[in-house]
Formats: sequence, structure tokens, C-alpha cells
Amino acid sequence: MQVIEFQIRTRQHNEMIDITAEVESIVEKSGTANGICLVFCPHTTAGLTINENADPSVRRDILTELSKIVPENDPDYSHSEGNSAAHVKASLISSSVQIIIENGRLLLGTWQGIYFCEFDGPRERKILMKIIEG
Amino acid sequence: MQVIEFQIRTRQHNEMIDITAEVESIVEKSGTANGICLVFCPHTTAGLTINENADPSVRRDILTELSKIVPENDPDYSHSEGNSAAHVKASLISSSVQIIIENGRLLLGTWQGIYFCEFDGPRERKILMKIIEG
Amino acid sequence: MQVIEFQIRTRQHNEMIDITAEVESIVEKSGTANGICLVFCPHTTAGLTINENADPSVRRDILTELSKIVPENDPDYSHSEGNSAAHVKASLISSSVQIIIENGRLLLGTWQGIYFCEFDGPRERKILMKIIEG
Repeated sequence: MQVIEFQIRTRQHNEMIDITAEVESIVEKSGTANGICLVFCPHTTAGLTINENADPSVRRDILTELSKIVPENDPDYSHSEGNSAAHVKASLISSSVQIIIENGRLLLGTWQGIYFCEFDGPRERKILMKIIEG
Repeated sequence: MQVIEFQIRTRQHNEMIDITAEVESIVEKSGTANGICLVFCPHTTAGLTINENADPSVRRDILTELSKIVPENDPDYSHSEGNSAAHVKASLISSSVQIIIENGRLLLGTWQGIYFCEFDGPRERKILMKIIEG
Repeated sequence: MQVIEFQIRTRQHNEMIDITAEVESIVEKSGTANGICLVFCPHTTAGLTINENADPSVRRDILTELSKIVPENDPDYSHSEGNSAAHVKASLISSSVQIIIENGRLLLGTWQGIYFCEFDGPRERKILMKIIEG
């Protein structure tokens, strides 16, 4: 199947945006019954993860803790753009998620949602999707 | 190929359980000669990783270090269920692993095993698998 | 398509090596028009990530910060080989990356490169690749 691209607008410097509905909708429109779906982030200061879709405090805690693990400012950072923390977080979180498609639906756990993780916003961002049938 | 689901029982709060034999057995039973295998964790306080299969001290060190990086208790956690550390670790470790299948076998390195990482146990957990031939 | 293996020589204890050109070249030689490419690291003290391909200071900052997050020496490490930090980093970074192939090319963002992350070098290392058409 062809590659699908969609855009999102982030509003905060660090932010997790639920993109499950967009991904699910693209899978439904594709008519794919079974296969896998690769969701890919083509940016180096953002990433993708799967985590809890219910209580928003989980996202808050993930972002807070990530900023403790990778401090925004560190005198040892050498990159002149000043966004090294965002690059480190992107590599810790990963540039893609893979989800199984079964009977035309994303096979996520009850509490799972797919999140775009912005680490250097606010910005216009894009997300790529590729479905492999099988 | 259809989705395969299997269950495991974790025994510790933080634990890495070797699931390589189960994954290998499912690949063998599927009769797949070549392709890729997606192993997916449908939980938000657990994850999957590939790491050393020989000395169990490696798993111990990974779990100990993860608990230093992401403390179990932090006054800044806001999630009322008290398991924010488990959610953060899940996103750091990732919800899936992908392995190449060649001549009916998982193409892992000599020292590699596939691990289910429990961060909020003990619990009954399930693991999903999807094979794409090609 | 068959599995492709290539070798690299790392020169530092901690090092990020750009392998984008090798991966791109293998995709081109395969003649694959569309699909996904799985790049897999069969080692447990190294990993793969996608991050900035322009300013080399970004790689330096990622490696420096990873070594602060996961200290090389920790009295709590029990693994006798003394490379526990490398194992922890490998699981944080991940053993594989997945990239979309479109019209015979890797669909990476403008600033993205694929990096082999050495955490216990210098060593001879190998990298596996599998392309799934679709």
C-alpha cells in the first residue's frame, strides 16, 4: 500500500499528542484486513511511543520524568542549536511504532494509545504511515 | 498469518522473563521459511527488549539501573495509581521487537534473547505475535 | 528478499556510526520499489537509532548524555564482564530500526540518518537487513 502522510500541530515545547484515531482511520480507509502498520516520525527532535490512553496524568509524568533524565540545559551540550535534550529524548523514545492489524482494526491493548512525542515544539510536524498486508 | 497470543505469569514487581523459546516455537509451528516476526506487548506498564541470554546478572543490572534512572517514587508524579515509573520505563524500553526469520529460524545474535519486561508486577500478562512472510 | 549482512569496524568505546549510505545502497541494489526495511543489530552491547545527520555535535551530545544517564561504573553492577552500562544502553536505544521504502528510496526525513551505536567498542560488528515488499 502507498505511504500515507498526515500533519499535526504541536502546542508545547514538550508534549504527547494522541494520534490513535488518525492512525485507526487511515487503517480503516485502506481496507486492509490483516497485516502490520508502521508509523514513522521523520523528525529528529520528536518520536513515537505507545502508552496509556486513559488518565492524562500518565503523559504528564512521562514528560516530567524524561526532562529529569535528560535535562534541558547541560553545560556539556555542544550542539549550537540548543536542542540537544530533544535529540537525546528522540533516540530514547524511538522513531517508529509497529502495530498489528487484525480484521481491519489496530490490535492495541485496552489501555494503549499511540502518541506523537514533541520534544522541541511548538511546531508543524508530519507523520508517515505504511501498511504491509499479510 | 494469523495473530498468535500467549500468556505469561510474572512473579516480581520488576522482572525480565526470557520468552525466546515460546517465540521460536511459534515461528517453527507457523512453517514460515522467511520473513519478519513482530512481537508486541499490549500493556502500558511492561515492554519488550532483546538483550543477553547468558549471564542472568545482566538482567539484574538492567532492572537495577532502570530503577535508578526512573525512580519508583518521585514527589512530582501526579498519576494516582502510583505506577508512573512503570509507564515511563515502558516507553523507554518499547512495546515491540522485530526479528528476522530465515530458513524457519529466528535470526538472533549468539548472545541475544527476547525478554518480556515487567515493571508493575506480579501479574498475568499476554504477548501478541504476527509473522509477515517475504 | 534474502537477508543481507554487512560489517563495520568501530573505533571508540562509545560511538555512533552513520550507516545510512550502506543501507540505502542495499535497498537500491535490491530493486525494491516499495515496502519496509528492517535493520537489525545482532549484538547486546550495541544498538541502532535514527537521529540528526548534519551537525556531528548532536551525536557527541547523545553519547555524553547517555553516559550520564547510565554510568560506566556503578558499585551496584553485578555482571562480571564489566560492561553492564553497554547492555543497559542497548536496551534503551533498541536493537532495530524500521524505515519505509518508497519508489526505491529510503523515506527518511531531511535531517535523519541511521546510526549504529557502539557502547562497548572498539570491535568488529555486523548488521543485518531484511526488506519486505508491499
